[in-house]
Amino acid sequence: MSSDALVPVRFAGDAVEYLDQRLLPHEVRMVRAVTVDEIEAAIATLAVRGAPCIGIFGAYGIALLRRTVAGDAAFAAAAARVRAARPTAVNLAWAVDRVLAAEEMLAEAEAIHREQIAIDRRIGRAAIELFPKRAAVLTHCNTGPLATGGEGTALGAIVAAARAGRRIHAYVDETRPLLQGSRLTVFELARAGVEATLLVDGAAAIAMQRKGIDLAIVGADRIARNGDTANKIGTYGLAIAAAHHGIPFYVAAPRSTFDFSIATGAEIPIEERGSEEVACFAGVRVAEEGTRVYNPAFDVTPGHLITAFVTEYGIIRSPYAETVPDLQYRPRIAEIA
Amino acid sequence: MSSDALVPVRFAGDAVEYLDQRLLPHEVRMVRAVTVDEIEAAIATLAVRGAPCIGIFGAYGIALLRRTVAGDAAFAAAAARVRAARPTAVNLAWAVDRVLAAEEMLAEAEAIHREQIAIDRRIGRAAIELFPKRAAVLTHCNTGPLATGGEGTALGAIVAAARAGRRIHAYVDETRPLLQGSRLTVFELARAGVEATLLVDGAAAIAMQRKGIDLAIVGADRIARNGDTANKIGTYGLAIAAAHHGIPFYVAAPRSTFDFSIATGAEIPIEERGSEEVACFAGVRVAEEGTRVYNPAFDVTPGHLITAFVTEYGIIRSPYAETVPDLQYRPRIAEIA
Repeated sequence: MSSDALVPVRFAGDAVEYLDQRLLPHEVRMVRAVTVDEIEAAIATLAVRGAPCIGIFGAYGIALLRRTVAGDAAFAAAAARVRAARPTAVNLAWAVDRVLAAEEMLAEAEAIHREQIAIDRRIGRAAIELFPKRAAVLTHCNTGPLATGGEGTALGAIVAAARAGRRIHAYVDETRPLLQGSRLTVFELARAGVEATLLVDGAAAIAMQRKGIDLAIVGADRIARNGDTANKIGTYGLAIAAAHHGIPFYVAAPRSTFDFSIATGAEIPIEERGSEEVACFAGVRVAEEGTRVYNPAFDVTPGHLITAFVTEYGIIRSPYAETVPDLQYRPRIAEIA
Repeated sequence: MSSDALVPVRFAGDAVEYLDQRLLPHEVRMVRAVTVDEIEAAIATLAVRGAPCIGIFGAYGIALLRRTVAGDAAFAAAAARVRAARPTAVNLAWAVDRVLAAEEMLAEAEAIHREQIAIDRRIGRAAIELFPKRAAVLTHCNTGPLATGGEGTALGAIVAAARAGRRIHAYVDETRPLLQGSRLTVFELARAGVEATLLVDGAAAIAMQRKGIDLAIVGADRIARNGDTANKIGTYGLAIAAAHHGIPFYVAAPRSTFDFSIATGAEIPIEERGSEEVACFAGVRVAEEGTRVYNPAFDVTPGHLITAFVTEYGIIRSPYAETVPDLQYRPRIAEIA
């Protein structure tokens, strides 16, 4: 990471500090979370976001709470609250469980963070071969350093391809309702020196038709054994449109995003969030009071619409029901880096 | 229309008055347009919007300018500006040309307005058979009374089906960037007593997968002889997703939206609008200054993704290259109402 890289999460001895991503790109503000209420709220409000990043934040949070919460029962209850702060991304539960099972909880949280940095680098390297020399690439939501604590997954792949000499133009979905594309991805690509064009989510299909999109690449929040992938709302429609146009559709994610315990995406819980995210904007109401809203934060893209996964173990291709479960038997990245 | 119906456009002798739709649903404000600058700006800024409605507004505008602009050359120049205020919807040029060719321009503009009211009723009646007894219907943008000056096209069809006893639940795309779904469609459906749920555009695909959507119906801005249809940005992706899920996808539009002079959608000019519509929101900047934006106001859905058109002449089915051109030889609606 460059010296001016933003740090989304860090352990500060008596607090877990996080960059409040709701304020970007206008304001860079680090906030301290000390209590279980503060840790849970930072995740639930998306002040800290991105599946790998909330895993790291949750891991540090557990390590902190182990020091500050008196009594095993109270600590267990606090840990359960952090683990359940958001339901869809599996990285949070995975990281919390890993820290809880460790002798030295802070050391384990630090290991998870260090490993994510190494994993992101490997994902970036593995992805380069997917980009032609000149590539127009479409992405959705935010999957950069802010989302992972490392160099990012899908956005990390785009930046890695650019650094490897590919001429990249990124098309960035704004990603309603919370505009992670407009606010975060455009911001991170500009800092990385990658040319980017912002578009509304509804313009992705015409961009595929008219702008010569070569590939689409997105991140993930949970991946089932058959390759079904939960990711930010809008991903599924994007994958359908990519298939319609014969455009390869890639998912970049670390092994910690794969949930080997579930056979298909039907088992992934989809978080539904409050109506105000859609009916209001920046404090301004856009739909009348009382409007009913359907606001799933994620959707599930069937594995058959995904051309390949990009992981720290390389490119994973179908048949996913065979290749995905194999991932769980690979050595941990820290051991092979 | 009910007695409290909003009037989007009306002729007031010395002005064309319009409801400034940018202020809805917060404020109902009628504005007077007197000069060619004011008439052009009302259309270009989307204060007046909806393909049929800008046709009616343009028609009244020409009738007004004929009275107020001295000199044939000056009037011709003014008329040309109104005609070109927005490029994609063909109704505007069609209505302006029709008024210009008439002996009595105001009478012709009034006839266009009256005919649209009759046409919308016929579209609504024709559409009822497309709705099952209980129907979950997805729509995009705004195609109600505010968009047509009558009862609406696609939204008119939904309301007509509800009035005919169908149990309707409408899913309404918010329709970025200008949120015609949140601001106008939800508002009009509530006034019509039709149950509605608002969702972000990116959630349409998961709604099709999980909410039992029975059909999708949208309006149009220009339709080529082969059925290729320009409509609000996001329509094309919706049609692809509907086809993927086996959900019928209908386009409701009057004959004046068909452009019999063009063979395919490739000939439809697509208006690209300013970056601030995407990069800012309610005066608040969401993407950094200088962000490049791709902001096409429309996309083109190929005819083969459209199950049928609903027109004042009934349901039009493929092969569109044969059935669409036939429409131009039908008698004018005023003559057969």
